[in-house]
Formats: sequence, structure tokens, C-alpha cells
Amino acid sequence: MKLHGYFRSAAAYRVRIALNLKGLPTDHLPHHLRKGEQCAPAYLAINPQGLVPTLEGDDGAVLTQSLAIIEWLDETHPDPPLLPKDPLRRAKVRAFAMALACDTHPVQNLRVLTRLRQLGVGEDKVTEWAAWANREGLSACEELVAHEAGPFCFGDKPSLADLCLVPQLGNARRFGVDVSAYPRLLKAETAAREMKAFLDAAPDRQPDAE
Amino acid sequence: MKLHGYFRSAAAYRVRIALNLKGLPTDHLPHHLRKGEQCAPAYLAINPQGLVPTLEGDDGAVLTQSLAIIEWLDETHPDPPLLPKDPLRRAKVRAFAMALACDTHPVQNLRVLTRLRQLGVGEDKVTEWAAWANREGLSACEELVAHEAGPFCFGDKPSLADLCLVPQLGNARRFGVDVSAYPRLLKAETAAREMKAFLDAAPDRQPDAE
Repeated sequence: MKLHGYFRSAAAYRVRIALNLKGLPTDHLPHHLRKGEQCAPAYLAINPQGLVPTLEGDDGAVLTQSLAIIEWLDETHPDPPLLPKDPLRRAKVRAFAMALACDTHPVQNLRVLTRLRQLGVGEDKVTEWAAWANREGLSACEELVAHEAGPFCFGDKPSLADLCLVPQLGNARRFGVDVSAYPRLLKAETAAREMKAFLDAAPDRQPDAE
Repeated sequence: MKLHGYFRSAAAYRVRIALNLKGLPTDHLPHHLRKGEQCAPAYLAINPQGLVPTLEGDDGAVLTQSLAIIEWLDETHPDPPLLPKDPLRRAKVRAFAMALACDTHPVQNLRVLTRLRQLGVGEDKVTEWAAWANREGLSACEELVAHEAGPFCFGDKPSLADLCLVPQLGNARRFGVDVSAYPRLLKAETAAREMKAFLDAAPDRQPDAE
């Protein structure tokens, strides 16, 4: 398989973790977002949103949107599972993942921060905006797993929730958020950091890392 | 079941359509977002994000995040299905839905527009921001279904994609977007508007409509 990504993209990072957990060898095709490479016509032809990641399957299938890609990976390569079997537990895991993937990450990604700068918003206010989005999302997620024993977000194995959490915590730190306010989330991150699948997916281990 | 929502919330609107398609009777509990009712402690106790919708099941289960709720409804009440059976087709439907639910709607919702106003951004620029987010998302979605015969987004029955599209087109019009640029999406909307499940879920048919 081929994954179109960018070392710093939290959405691509989620898919890298999933591919590593599933043990699927992947060619990584970086697109430098800050140089606008995701807007090249050849890339827009496979991903009209001009966002990363895009996964190309061995049979030529083209998949976009990180959570849709991960659900597909989980359906076609079920071991190890990234969602629980029980419908209500699945809904809890998905809701946690979407609190980050819908309401947090897209509000603080490069596309939105660039638009803020175009409106004349100063750099300190842009960073504060990104920090705000991260705090809002992580605070809610801390509540969502407050009564979960762990050590991962939901149980003793990583799930879609952890795949979204670990990259988001990286973003939060980058924008200056004091993540010590989220001890339960940090407990899950600590468990994840003991796994090679998570470590190998980290931004600083990617070939395009700067 | 009980659905905590708001007549104008596109995310609650998606779930209303799903509940109607599944034929599930539901009590609707409105929370006036512009008056901040979603931030009342009693509501935050069940939805720490302070967003709508939240679904309370008959057994007391509490579900948040519209797409997680709809996936749960589809798993527990599979008829009629809201996702195809084939994994790749499921991924295509989910990717379309997430292009709207992750990258479009959260960038133009009340929370973000309020934050823009707090930064001193003028009302015309706030509306232009919301229109931009809608144009970006809908343009990509038009491409994603360009080769789908329809009449719905993916096939001859409504799917999760249509549940996200119809509310988003309503938002786009509200922000002054010329939706005639998306003929394939309008074809799907026209098909949806022939179904009572979609019509009854519309904002202007809700008890809290203004």
C-alpha cells in the first residue's frame, strides 16, 4: 500500500499508527503541506480536498479521510481490532475519536490557521486560537475517559481513540498547551509510547521530518 | 429514545434523519445554542463537549457525536442500512460524510464563528469565512460523487453521505453560497426531499424552530 502523508499531519499520523499495528508494509509518499504540494493537480485528482492522508491499496483502491481509512483497515485486516465488538463501546470509542478528528484537529490545522493570518490576525492570536481548540477538545476527552480503567483510552489495548489522541497531544504541546491538565489522557499516551507501532509512526521518525 | 438537539444544528439534523429512516420514535429535547443552554451543568454532565446532539437510549445509554450515533443506530437497527456492505464502498461513503462532518461543519459552526467575532473579525468577514468553509467542502464532495449514477450520493438509496449532505447544503445557503455550482449534490438533495424522513427532520419542522 501507499500512504500519501506529511510527517507533521496529525491525520496522517493516525493512519501510520494503524498500518503499523496491523503490520502492513507501506510506501510513504510525503507531500510538503507548507509548500502547497497537496494542491498539485496530480494529487487533487486522487484527493479533491487537497488534504492528507490518502491511502492507495494494492488493488488501486483510493481511500481518503483518516477515520474512514482506519475503519476500512479494521474491516479488511481485523487483527488486531481497533474497535470493540460491543456496539455501545464502539460508539464511545468513535465519539472520543471524533471529538478530536471533527471538532479539534480541523479547527487548528494549517488550512484554518492560514485563513486566520489572511484575515490579519496576528501570530500570537493564531497560536492562541490553535491552543484553544486543543484545550477544548482534550478537556472534553479527559472527561469522556475519566471512569475508564485503561491504561489505554478504552481498555488494555489501543483503539481508534488512542490513534487520535497521541497525535493530538503532539499538536497541543506544539501550540503551548499545558497537557498536565489531562492526567488520564497522559496515562493512555504513556501506554502507547511503549509500543513500537506508535513510536515508529511519530513525526520525527518519518523520512520527510525537518 | 431522547435526542438532545437544536433545530438549526446540522449535526442534530443528521441524526434526526437517521432516526426517521429507521422508524424510531424519539423525544426531542431542544437546547438553545445561541442562549448557551448547551453549557448548563446538567447537559455538560452527559456531553462534556457542550455540543449537540446527544442521544439517550431507552436503556440509559448516552451517545455523543453525530456520526458515532448514526453508526451505532446502523449497527443496532440495521434496517434500512445507512452504509453499503462492501468495505471499499463503506469507506467512500464515510469519507464523503467526514469531508463535511470533520473538515466543513466544525469550521463554520457557532462556536468557531463566535470565536472569530471575539477576535474582532467583522460580521461580513465572519459570513465570508463560513461561506468559504462550505464552498471548500461541497466542491470536494461534488468531485467525490461525480461518477456516481445516484440519484443519491452513493446509489439509489440514502446513506450516511446524504444524511450529512442535506443539512450542509442548508447551511451553505444560509451563508450565501451559490449551490448551483454543485449539480450532482443537488441531484442527491432532490431525491432526499422526496422522502418524508428527510422532510420531517428539517429545521423548520422542529418544535424549537424560530
